[in-house]
Amino acid sequence: MPDSLRVALVSPPMLPVPPPGYSGTERVVAALIDELVKRGHRVTLYAPGDSEVDCELVPTIPHSLWATDYRGDVSSFINIGLAKLWADHERFDIVHSHVETLGFLFARHCPRPVVTTLHGRLDGSGIPELMAEFMDIPLVAISDSQGRWFPENNWIKTVHHGLPLEQAPFGDQPGEYLALVGRVTPEKGVDEAIELARRAHLQLKLAAKVYDRHEKEHFAEVVAPAIDDGVVEFQGEVGQIERDSLYAGALATLMLGAWPEPFGLVAIESMATGTPVIARRAGALTETVEHGVDGFLVDDLDEAFLAVQRAPDLDRALIRERALDRFSAGRMVDEYEDVYRALLGGSRKRQTEVPTELRVASGVR
Amino acid sequence: MPDSLRVALVSPPMLPVPPPGYSGTERVVAALIDELVKRGHRVTLYAPGDSEVDCELVPTIPHSLWATDYRGDVSSFINIGLAKLWADHERFDIVHSHVETLGFLFARHCPRPVVTTLHGRLDGSGIPELMAEFMDIPLVAISDSQGRWFPENNWIKTVHHGLPLEQAPFGDQPGEYLALVGRVTPEKGVDEAIELARRAHLQLKLAAKVYDRHEKEHFAEVVAPAIDDGVVEFQGEVGQIERDSLYAGALATLMLGAWPEPFGLVAIESMATGTPVIARRAGALTETVEHGVDGFLVDDLDEAFLAVQRAPDLDRALIRERALDRFSAGRMVDEYEDVYRALLGGSRKRQTEVPTELRVASGVR
Repeated sequence: MPDSLRVALVSPPMLPVPPPGYSGTERVVAALIDELVKRGHRVTLYAPGDSEVDCELVPTIPHSLWATDYRGDVSSFINIGLAKLWADHERFDIVHSHVETLGFLFARHCPRPVVTTLHGRLDGSGIPELMAEFMDIPLVAISDSQGRWFPENNWIKTVHHGLPLEQAPFGDQPGEYLALVGRVTPEKGVDEAIELARRAHLQLKLAAKVYDRHEKEHFAEVVAPAIDDGVVEFQGEVGQIERDSLYAGALATLMLGAWPEPFGLVAIESMATGTPVIARRAGALTETVEHGVDGFLVDDLDEAFLAVQRAPDLDRALIRERALDRFSAGRMVDEYEDVYRALLGGSRKRQTEVPTELRVASGVR
Repeated sequence: MPDSLRVALVSPPMLPVPPPGYSGTERVVAALIDELVKRGHRVTLYAPGDSEVDCELVPTIPHSLWATDYRGDVSSFINIGLAKLWADHERFDIVHSHVETLGFLFARHCPRPVVTTLHGRLDGSGIPELMAEFMDIPLVAISDSQGRWFPENNWIKTVHHGLPLEQAPFGDQPGEYLALVGRVTPEKGVDEAIELARRAHLQLKLAAKVYDRHEKEHFAEVVAPAIDDGVVEFQGEVGQIERDSLYAGALATLMLGAWPEPFGLVAIESMATGTPVIARRAGALTETVEHGVDGFLVDDLDEAFLAVQRAPDLDRALIRERALDRFSAGRMVDEYEDVYRALLGGSRKRQTEVPTELRVASGVR
């Protein structure tokens, strides 16, 4: 395999790369591109035309659907991007799909090796049928937790996300408030966080999207009364710099929702500023947050209350150091280079037999 | 080309074939299968496992999504069906896709000729981008009206729907009420129909789905008061026999919505019972309803009121005879056999050059 690969990435139609607001997939794709380019790979991104990346961009559609206020079905637009990439396939050594299960049919038949990173949860309707039909598709999980329901699928590796976290400020002292970043939904644990803040007599600073009807209802029911009481300071959806500042100044960041995060970028961003994470013992957080070192894994509010009391004792410099080491874009791309090599080392068409050491290393059970 | 073709049809995941309630695509697919089988073709249907057809059935999923109360995104399930069909492609001479634009990528790359009948309107978001990307895909329009926005695409033919209409009862005398069958939505012209019924001092018998929130709101706002007034008799969603009986007993069937029907099965069902159609001059109805013979095409409520007065003068036996002749399943399958032959006569891979006589015959402008 040559040192420099011709890599095509395909990203969803809803948002540009990088995304304007708070979105996981497109931020990770942006970080992946920057690091691949830095290493001399020739990268081409298939994404909406309003993307701004330091590599070749093939616009799948002129503008991201978000920018055009489109809120309908996105599947057709995904097929437009896949069609353009398929037409160009001879230009690439490998294709890296970020369009979830909707890219599976493409991945099977496009005459180039295609690896698919799944970014979402895998417990939705239709997923079991899809995973059963597409047992051959080479997959990357973003956490062992994400992949564990489908151990028989063709997982090449688990690759935890990485971001350019070294830009984050360091909050060297434990702050006087709790932080929550995300969406105002029950699964993000907003109500639990408010109850915890009340019990701990601390303010909860909340940076969150309130977009759809359910979120608005949840806001009115749960958040608005707590703002009136002074328990919550609500910041809406804020940019990267404000978010980093919010994390850095906090005593701890809360992720208390009964939601098995497939990864949870909030955790690594908080830890990068030195601020520990108090998380429900669920999903990928059991992999990214080491209990008693990076924060605490809790099962209920009583444990969360104890975790708040213990948070000042943690070594914030160590938390930051570990985060920058474990969740750098460099480490992520080291692992994706391994994945690409594994696919290219097999048949040119696609990899159906996974090398044993990779399957074992993935830890997917 | 052999007289007997091996034809694969693929139908959407939401409903079985035939459908339990009032749905266009699956009813037409059912009629197509029955007639193809009658003519000795070997037909295989890729559709949900609760379909009941007199041909080979390959279940795409065990149960239709409707039966499982699934109301999410259907695109992934379409890919499951297409994946199974692709794996079997060598078993068939030709593939006939009914999964709309989501089958385009499959149609381009599956190594068998694929023809796609588009069943929906073509003015939705994303359609222009899709039609531009997939200029090569061989298409069938269900009306000239449907295809007219994309004259440059690869239309093989316009094929009006056909159904086994000879089963419909004949209503030999003009009835004393107006009929409306469809959904309780503004685009179906429910409010215009009620206003017309009031002006004409006739009852409106309404057989309609009220499923989603918008339909419920429209029902409460527009239909409920008219039921209280005795203007509307509401029948809910009724089966084929009740619908036919409703049509047969009516003075006329109303299709007054400002909605360009891509086809409008209601019109042909009504005409099959001898009952004329009073339709807004829009969409496919300008092709299926001949003004002054099968009913009337109107531009506003004043014209509709005049049409109600003139409806008893029309020859109901002629309306029925014309409908059974023009919209039989036999005529539809005659035309689809032409389409299949046109595709098979070209390259084995797929047809990109359309024979001139077919393109002209399609009448798509």
